[in-house]
Amino acid sequence: MDNDCLFCKIIKGEVPSTKVYEDEFVYGFKDINPAAPIHILVVPKKHIASLAELTDEDEKYVWAIHKAMNKIAEEQGFKENGYRVVINCGKDSGQEVMHLHYHVLAGNKFGDKIV
Amino acid sequence: MDNDCLFCKIIKGEVPSTKVYEDEFVYGFKDINPAAPIHILVVPKKHIASLAELTDEDEKYVWAIHKAMNKIAEEQGFKENGYRVVINCGKDSGQEVMHLHYHVLAGNKFGDKIV
Repeated sequence: MDNDCLFCKIIKGEVPSTKVYEDEFVYGFKDINPAAPIHILVVPKKHIASLAELTDEDEKYVWAIHKAMNKIAEEQGFKENGYRVVINCGKDSGQEVMHLHYHVLAGNKFGDKIV
Repeated sequence: MDNDCLFCKIIKGEVPSTKVYEDEFVYGFKDINPAAPIHILVVPKKHIASLAELTDEDEKYVWAIHKAMNKIAEEQGFKENGYRVVINCGKDSGQEVMHLHYHVLAGNKFGDKIV
């Protein structure tokens, strides 16, 4: 955990969030500025700055995030219609918080435009 | 492998592609309709239809894809500036080929608009 990291503070409950999912490795909560009708951030409970900072120790977090996204899709009712995942990594990507996070977007037809 | 799947055919070399990366578990190639200056598709060498179809046997593919994306970023020269990853899952998302693929997008400043 990083004491100065917004998402670490959210995981610890020091900053409020609307939780939608939690397990040993993963925390999922609603984005406060949703870009789609459903917009959930899924983050590892370990402070990993970005995709670029992943090490071999982090495989279990990445896998847990993938399983969590499907559980969330089922629990939140968008499993059938599907969802889009966006992950920003580094300065050109639009990554705003330096704690790895998977944007899970649903409730829209996103079409074939991907950026 | 699925004989009717475009990406399985690409992996087997039955359909041509511009390869940028390959290892035991992963194949990476240029998108033929790039949505950014650099647009690479990173796919598992196993036919997995989408994120929603992942099973516990597939952890090694998901992890290999994550490692591959960082290797590609280094080899293709966009590690420092970063990249965006988009994964579409299911009918509302815009997923066009039912073989799990991670869009790796770079060479642009994507800003804070994520969809």
